[in-house]
Amino acid sequence: MIDAKNIGLREVYVADTKVSEVDGTSGKLVYRGYTIETLADRSTYEETAFLLLHGRLPTQEEFDLFNASLKKERWIPQVLIQSGQRLPPSTSPMDVTQGTIPILAGYDSEVGVETREANVRKAIRLIAKVATSVATWARIREGKEPVAPREDLGHAANFLYMLNGEVPAPETARLFDICLILHADHQFNASTFTCRVVASTRAHMYASIAAGIGALGGALHGGANEEVMKMLKEIGDPAKLEAWVKTRIESGGRIMGMGHAVYKTLDPRARILHNLAGSLVARTSNKLWFEMSEQLEQVARKEFDARGKARLHPNVDFYSASVYSAMGIPTDLFTPVFAVSRMAGWCAHVIEEKFADAQPKPALYRPEATYTGPGPDLEGLPYTPIEKRTAA
Amino acid sequence: MIDAKNIGLREVYVADTKVSEVDGTSGKLVYRGYTIETLADRSTYEETAFLLLHGRLPTQEEFDLFNASLKKERWIPQVLIQSGQRLPPSTSPMDVTQGTIPILAGYDSEVGVETREANVRKAIRLIAKVATSVATWARIREGKEPVAPREDLGHAANFLYMLNGEVPAPETARLFDICLILHADHQFNASTFTCRVVASTRAHMYASIAAGIGALGGALHGGANEEVMKMLKEIGDPAKLEAWVKTRIESGGRIMGMGHAVYKTLDPRARILHNLAGSLVARTSNKLWFEMSEQLEQVARKEFDARGKARLHPNVDFYSASVYSAMGIPTDLFTPVFAVSRMAGWCAHVIEEKFADAQPKPALYRPEATYTGPGPDLEGLPYTPIEKRTAA
Repeated sequence: MIDAKNIGLREVYVADTKVSEVDGTSGKLVYRGYTIETLADRSTYEETAFLLLHGRLPTQEEFDLFNASLKKERWIPQVLIQSGQRLPPSTSPMDVTQGTIPILAGYDSEVGVETREANVRKAIRLIAKVATSVATWARIREGKEPVAPREDLGHAANFLYMLNGEVPAPETARLFDICLILHADHQFNASTFTCRVVASTRAHMYASIAAGIGALGGALHGGANEEVMKMLKEIGDPAKLEAWVKTRIESGGRIMGMGHAVYKTLDPRARILHNLAGSLVARTSNKLWFEMSEQLEQVARKEFDARGKARLHPNVDFYSASVYSAMGIPTDLFTPVFAVSRMAGWCAHVIEEKFADAQPKPALYRPEATYTGPGPDLEGLPYTPIEKRTAA
Repeated sequence: MIDAKNIGLREVYVADTKVSEVDGTSGKLVYRGYTIETLADRSTYEETAFLLLHGRLPTQEEFDLFNASLKKERWIPQVLIQSGQRLPPSTSPMDVTQGTIPILAGYDSEVGVETREANVRKAIRLIAKVATSVATWARIREGKEPVAPREDLGHAANFLYMLNGEVPAPETARLFDICLILHADHQFNASTFTCRVVASTRAHMYASIAAGIGALGGALHGGANEEVMKMLKEIGDPAKLEAWVKTRIESGGRIMGMGHAVYKTLDPRARILHNLAGSLVARTSNKLWFEMSEQLEQVARKEFDARGKARLHPNVDFYSASVYSAMGIPTDLFTPVFAVSRMAGWCAHVIEEKFADAQPKPALYRPEATYTGPGPDLEGLPYTPIEKRTAA
């Protein structure tokens, strides 16, 4: 039997990283040395992406070049639109997103160029194109025409424009921009680790990222804010909320979006999002879920305290669910939107895996496992001819 | 700095497994308790796939049902053929294969059904369809019409038929069948580990497998027999072989397909393949590369011995390169063919990850990393406004 600390590698340090740090005890998150509070307050998603990829903030000239490249790379191949129009509309947007990425590799003449610079350019293409791809499928599956990207809009505003066909209000665009910053990286979470394992085989950037998207789709990973939304809809009515929470906590059931594998205190992203979102959401026609989330947090805290239980704090998913909903983003697009934001972090980690200056150098991930099946001493089981086998 | 034994997880036991065991010291490989020699000698790929998925050999009735399902599931959606015809013909077959898998999820009404039985059915679909998908793209990119699968042919023969448009000779089909058996599983290699990491998030079978395909495409993993073929073509002429090997070993260069991360002795798969392939390859018009491989093995052994160096033994890739080439498989299809064979093992591991009866249960893979970037004590770096930043 394997060592308990190796289960899920929860206590195993697998690499050094300069991309980001999560301190779960004090509730701190930094990207390349900058706190998430600083970046949410002062940066944009585009600048944060530069920071993650290059390890430092850009000068004005560098930023302008980077931003222009991002805008220029928003196109996606026509074949993806045409084939999208033939897919079953029920195909999960996460499956379409995962399937799209390797196909983009065929349109990148630098796919096999393994320099740091070429990989940064691939990252720019991926950051730009995944947004277009997600918005395009969201429209196609509803029988709508795709909306072409607009170069006069930033990354966040352009995504909402491609999704809804309307330019969002500046405050909405800025709040979405902050959401993208908040989700841009989170160290060695399961999808990022997946990207790095794949990159460690010297697979190219697109193959590595497509793998990570597969992991993000799992219910234990990127699917969490979808679960929060389902929970809010299940409760359905603020008047029923208190009773629902009591029953839930009494029965030992889980409140979706509360508690976190790494944060033992309030997730700093949840605090930022909660503080910023209120005034914006209040002006939308779709504020019910956000207000119910706030109420749920308060009721849960009271209940935890009344029962002498340790408080479970909201994580980022707890508030992003109702914020995205207020922005008109359908629930099953929450995880693809997570992929849109996490793209910068994934790419930064793939580049670090490929070009780390760390010593010892990263190596192909090839862990050990303990064989507990039949066939003692590897002499092997005898092979019984099929006609002599009997049903188990 | 992280512990050296954690680099690439080479000495970290991450799980218990009943699927397969690799003993690198004695050069043994078993699937579900049966040695690879037994299976290569007596089983078929279809039966081996049943064994890997179910943990035991089938009765005749079970085998007939399993085999009929495999044949019935060989179709692929028309949209994949249509969009394939619009892709750049230079698109890597591995990229197309990785991109295809998540799209297949949209055609599987059981994609979200997370029972063991439903996952075995998904595995059958994947094993069947990946073969059709690889053969289809191999033809489309050359401007040829895809060849529809034939239900009267076994998995190996049908693949070669779909690829070449001709039913292979029985001995060729059997040798390819054995190649598929030999590559069907290899415990926690990088692609299988990737599949398991993704499955640990509760992502579905298709998302997990697509991720593994990304890892297989890496030059340090599934790309090895392509490298062997490139080396043979670089040498080009048996008369130049001895000098090439001497120079290579003298300069400390690597001989592709010799040595293995796990096997410290002869890879048992290489021995099986070498023994079986000779007589078949001798009858083809394309035997040069196989004979050069044999010669290369002998020359290298002599050179290692003469220099008092430890012998590096051929691994399975060393011989599969020239065997595949003799079968008319293009070099850049070697890794996709590897995916066709490994599909059974990947699926078995995903099922084990999802439904293991092991204690402690597997958990979401979420390793630790050591942050070595800037921003001491997580107080964070000061944010300089962009107009005040200076070039690095």
